[in-house]
Amino acid sequence: MGLFSKDIAMLDDLFVHTLQDIYYAEHQITKALPKMIDKASNPQLKQGFETHLRETEGQIARLERVFEMHGEKPKQVDCPAIDGIIKEANEIAGDVADKAVLDAALIAAAQAVEHYEITRYGTLIAWAKQLGRDDCAAVLAETLAEEKSTDEKLTQMAETGANARAEQVTEPA
Amino acid sequence: MGLFSKDIAMLDDLFVHTLQDIYYAEHQITKALPKMIDKASNPQLKQGFETHLRETEGQIARLERVFEMHGEKPKQVDCPAIDGIIKEANEIAGDVADKAVLDAALIAAAQAVEHYEITRYGTLIAWAKQLGRDDCAAVLAETLAEEKSTDEKLTQMAETGANARAEQVTEPA
Repeated sequence: MGLFSKDIAMLDDLFVHTLQDIYYAEHQITKALPKMIDKASNPQLKQGFETHLRETEGQIARLERVFEMHGEKPKQVDCPAIDGIIKEANEIAGDVADKAVLDAALIAAAQAVEHYEITRYGTLIAWAKQLGRDDCAAVLAETLAEEKSTDEKLTQMAETGANARAEQVTEPA
Repeated sequence: MGLFSKDIAMLDDLFVHTLQDIYYAEHQITKALPKMIDKASNPQLKQGFETHLRETEGQIARLERVFEMHGEKPKQVDCPAIDGIIKEANEIAGDVADKAVLDAALIAAAQAVEHYEITRYGTLIAWAKQLGRDDCAAVLAETLAEEKSTDEKLTQMAETGANARAEQVTEPA
């Protein structure tokens, strides 16, 4: 969640800080996804990334709504976790020559991103409820449902199409 | 997954590389957990981290078994993702003064670690099956089950005890 500008004293501070953390993360994801769309070969995967890019833009708008509901201005704080996850995704995308194997690697990278979001939104929802902000929790839950659905679709692709093709292409005849 | 020493040509290369990535990650987690144990106040949370440290040691042994089954020597490669996740965990642990709020932050940090492991083991299992290595998949599935169980226990603590206490302690009377 990056270095804090002030110490965290209350659960409310932690909630706001984590909102800022995921707000930064979502912005980084909108920058990373176009590269992943370019690199993906499987049309279903390419399409999935395109859909997720649009969803991510909606998730940013939803976070801005939560900031506003909570009387805070939207703000980003550095998030070394998402930076590390995206760094890995870029490194792997640069190192895999075979298209089908690259697709398998892209799916894995995207799932790492999804799981980071799933854990942060899960935490934010628990804290919002604890703070008596069921209204914020409800908005955040919409995003969590989208992230889980995206992760499930990626799992399906990993278990069926993309990996099978990777195996087929790369195994010796 | 760090910089590659060679390009990834086949799904098998990707599988081995990701084994090396999570092997590094598990070692980093065994270094991070003792600090989290020290910082946790809630006895249930402290105990949970202690149990997970022992589990992580078992998971490392299990990874070594999978390397061996697959004819590879156990090896670590840098994993910027887990480094980033642990960096965030350390930063937050250093910045929260209130014990109950710190516990809530530690739970969130631990869940981010768990979700990284869940996604990587999920990917490894899918690839092992694709490669016809159901034997490796079965061993990895034991670890995945442990990670999911740990994450569920942390969710329970986040939704009940630890956060409620954080709220109680920090809200103005």
